[in-house]
Amino acid sequence: MLKKILVTIMTCIAFSFYNSVSSQTNAHYIRIAKLTIDSSKLEEYKQALKENAETAVRVEPGVLMLYAVYEKEHPTNVTVFEIYADEAAYRIHIQAAHFLKYKATVQDMVKSLELIDVSPIALEAKKQISN
Amino acid sequence: MLKKILVTIMTCIAFSFYNSVSSQTNAHYIRIAKLTIDSSKLEEYKQALKENAETAVRVEPGVLMLYAVYEKEHPTNVTVFEIYADEAAYRIHIQAAHFLKYKATVQDMVKSLELIDVSPIALEAKKQISN
Repeated sequence: MLKKILVTIMTCIAFSFYNSVSSQTNAHYIRIAKLTIDSSKLEEYKQALKENAETAVRVEPGVLMLYAVYEKEHPTNVTVFEIYADEAAYRIHIQAAHFLKYKATVQDMVKSLELIDVSPIALEAKKQISN
Repeated sequence: MLKKILVTIMTCIAFSFYNSVSSQTNAHYIRIAKLTIDSSKLEEYKQALKENAETAVRVEPGVLMLYAVYEKEHPTNVTVFEIYADEAAYRIHIQAAHFLKYKATVQDMVKSLELIDVSPIALEAKKQISN
């Protein structure tokens, strides 16, 4: 009986630990995209990116976060911080209708694109942060 | 009576709009920090950064998000995506004991630091994203 309880407790601890680690870091596919945009098309580009980000996070279960910003001093420099549930979710994303529409819309607006795969050191946020 | 109802409805709409806009974009102070770290001190640095991020988000009401990552291909290149409630919250943060401890700890580990003020295009995330 005692052995059964101990095994159950150890299993629970192991499972919690696995969940904690995998949900925080290992499973997620995280990337930074750096773009430079044609200055004459910046407002159009931002609108297209915003629409794609809103739709992707709303309808795709595996798109966890798309935070897109532009530099105040150099507004044509855009950075997107992207978190997908895993690499498979990213592969699904780039085949989605809204993403393909976004890519077609912005193809003449984007002057350069650099994709950087990254690993997390800390992903800390308030639970109630608005987006 | 009808006028009162209309005024109430208009006030609600205006308030919702204000809340929506201010919580999403205008008030927040958002920044990207780019660092290069001494390769011989990378693990120590990541630990110090992780501790600072965890403490800041936990204890400081105005530190909304600190997402820190390193490049898979160039692990000494670190990026931190930072969101504060406003610029005042950032000023409080850089005077906090945990931040001053972090700065003292890492002063010989950081080879370069670039701080870039940014404005949001889209800040989209699942409500239930783990961190």
